[in-house]
Amino acid sequence: MRRDPVTGHWVILSPERKMRPRFYVQNGENVLTPGNCPFCEGNESMTPPEIYAVRDRQSRANERGWRLRVVPNKYPALRVEGSLDKRGEGFYDKLNGIGAHEVVIETNSHVKGMDELGVEEVTEIFLTFKRRILDLKKDIRFKYIQVFKNHERMAGATISHPHSQIVALPVVPLRLGEMLDAARGHFEVRDRCMFCDIIYHEGEYGKRVLVENGEFIVISPFAPKMPFELAIYPKGHGASFEDAADSSVGSLASILRDVLGRLNRALERPAYNLILHNSPFGMGCGDYFHWHIELVPVITGTGGFELGTYTYINPTVPEEAIKVLSGKG
Amino acid sequence: MRRDPVTGHWVILSPERKMRPRFYVQNGENVLTPGNCPFCEGNESMTPPEIYAVRDRQSRANERGWRLRVVPNKYPALRVEGSLDKRGEGFYDKLNGIGAHEVVIETNSHVKGMDELGVEEVTEIFLTFKRRILDLKKDIRFKYIQVFKNHERMAGATISHPHSQIVALPVVPLRLGEMLDAARGHFEVRDRCMFCDIIYHEGEYGKRVLVENGEFIVISPFAPKMPFELAIYPKGHGASFEDAADSSVGSLASILRDVLGRLNRALERPAYNLILHNSPFGMGCGDYFHWHIELVPVITGTGGFELGTYTYINPTVPEEAIKVLSGKG
Repeated sequence: MRRDPVTGHWVILSPERKMRPRFYVQNGENVLTPGNCPFCEGNESMTPPEIYAVRDRQSRANERGWRLRVVPNKYPALRVEGSLDKRGEGFYDKLNGIGAHEVVIETNSHVKGMDELGVEEVTEIFLTFKRRILDLKKDIRFKYIQVFKNHERMAGATISHPHSQIVALPVVPLRLGEMLDAARGHFEVRDRCMFCDIIYHEGEYGKRVLVENGEFIVISPFAPKMPFELAIYPKGHGASFEDAADSSVGSLASILRDVLGRLNRALERPAYNLILHNSPFGMGCGDYFHWHIELVPVITGTGGFELGTYTYINPTVPEEAIKVLSGKG
Repeated sequence: MRRDPVTGHWVILSPERKMRPRFYVQNGENVLTPGNCPFCEGNESMTPPEIYAVRDRQSRANERGWRLRVVPNKYPALRVEGSLDKRGEGFYDKLNGIGAHEVVIETNSHVKGMDELGVEEVTEIFLTFKRRILDLKKDIRFKYIQVFKNHERMAGATISHPHSQIVALPVVPLRLGEMLDAARGHFEVRDRCMFCDIIYHEGEYGKRVLVENGEFIVISPFAPKMPFELAIYPKGHGASFEDAADSSVGSLASILRDVLGRLNRALERPAYNLILHNSPFGMGCGDYFHWHIELVPVITGTGGFELGTYTYINPTVPEEAIKVLSGKG
C-alpha cells in the first residue's frame, strides 16, 4: 500500500488482481451460468476452502448442502500473511498490504436478488457479517473492516451470483476519517452524537424519510451525492455494528428487503452499492460514531468533475427521490 | 448546493440536468452524427449563443467559419444569475448554486481525438482555458474554476464530439482543500513547494517518468488510484495555470499530444478524464501550490469499496505502467 502525499489517500497496489478472469463481457451480458459459476452449489472446488458456512447438519465443508458460504477472495487485494513493515521512501509512505479479503456467497441460487430472499436468509447474511467482524477484529494489525456489496456490473461486480465482500484494512480509510472528524467536532461542541441529531431532525421533518420500523429509519440524506441514495440508521445509538443484538439484525434485514423492493420497482432493478459504515477499532469513538448503511443505486455516471473536485452533481433532490420511492412521485 | 454534515462534501443539486437528452445508447454506440450533433459546424443554433470563438476573419458569431467555440452548457449544473444566499437549515448548510458552466467545443471535426489535432489546435484549446479563467475570475462570487475533459462515455461524456468543460464554483472543493492542506503543511515544515520536491525526486528516480521536455515532466504518481494514471507538471514553480506564458501553453500542448498518442497506442484508445488542478482565488497559496494536470484512463471500474473508503485498488504499479507506455513493457 502506498500513500499519495498530495491528497493523503492510501492506495492498494495489487498486481495479482490483474489475473482475474472477466466474467462479464463488454455489453454487460453475463457469461456465467450455474454450470461454470464458482459461487454455485456443486462448484465448491472452484473457490479457496471455506472460512465459514451455513450448512445442513449432515453436509461436509466445501461440499454441497450449504445455504451461505464465506471464502477467501481468490484474487485478494490484501493478504493475511506477513508484517506491516511501515516505511518511508524519500518523503513517500508505504506499508505491506496486510489485511483480509473475504467473499460472502449469500445464497446457493445463481439468480436471486437480496429482495427475493426470505427475511431469515437476509438476516443470516448480516449475522455472517457480524460473526466475521468479531473474528477478524481479534487481529490487532487490522484497524478497520469494510463490508460492502456491489450488485451488477455497473456497480463494480465481476461475478453476477449474489455476494458481498469483507475487507480488513491495516489503516483507517480517509472517508471514515472525514466522518470521524465531523462527528467528533459535533460531539465536542454539543455533547451529542451527530447521527442521533440527524435521525431526530429527519424524523421530525419527515420529507426525506422513506420508511421506518421499531429499530431502524431509512432516509435520503440532505446532500446526496447520487440520485436515490439512501441511508439506513439504527434509531438507538450504537457505534459498532458487531455489537448489535441478533434481533436487531433481523429487524435490519426486514427493512432492507423492503427498501430493495421499492428501489427495484421504482428504478427497474438498478445496479447498486451497499456500504456498511462501522467504527474503526481501538479509537474510542463509541460516544460519537453511529454505525449505518449507505445504499447507492448506480444510475448516473461520474466524470472528471467529480474526480477532480469530489463535488457531485445530482439531478434528483432527496425530497423528490422519497416521493418516487414511496410511489407518490 | 447543500453540504453533507457527515463528510463535509458539497453537492450540486441540479434538477434541470435531468432534462438532458441521452446521446449515447445503452451499448455505448453513439447515435449522434455530424447532421444532428449540436457541436458540429452548421448546427450553431443548437447551442446557446457563443461566449468566445476562434473564427475566420470574415465569419460572424454563431455561424459557420469557426475552429473552436465556447458556449454556455445548455443544461448547466450552476447558474450565473443571483446571489449566493448562504444559509442554514437546522444544522445543515446550503447556498444557491451560483457559478458558470461552459463547454469548449475543441474542434469543428466530429471525430478527431485531441492527439489527432495539430499542436497549434491543442495550444488554442489550452489558451482558451487560460482566457476563460482570466475572464471568469473577475467575478468575486467564484472561489474556484474546474477545467476538465471527459473523453468517451465510460469517462462520463454524454456527447462524443470532442469538448471540454469549465465550471466556476462558489466554494473551494474538498479535493482541492485536501491538496492545499498537504501542500501548506509541507511548506511550513520545509519552506519548499511539495510539488517541486515531487518533481525533483521523480526526475532523479526516473522509473516513474514517462516523458519530459524543456518545461514539463509527465510522471505516473507514486500512489496512483487508477491504472496508467499520469500527472503533467510544469517544471518551474507556478501556482496558477492562467499565469503561464503563452509559449509554455504551447509546450504543454506538445507534450500532451505526445502522451495521448502513447495512451492510445498502448491501451487501444481508452476513455479518459483530464483534470486541471489550479489555484483557488484569493487564498494566497502562491508559494506552496503548483498547478498540474491529472490524466486518468478509465479502464477499471470502481465499486462499493472505493465509494465507502476512498481507498482505490489498483492492479498496475506505476513503474510498470511507465514501461508499457514507453513501449518497453
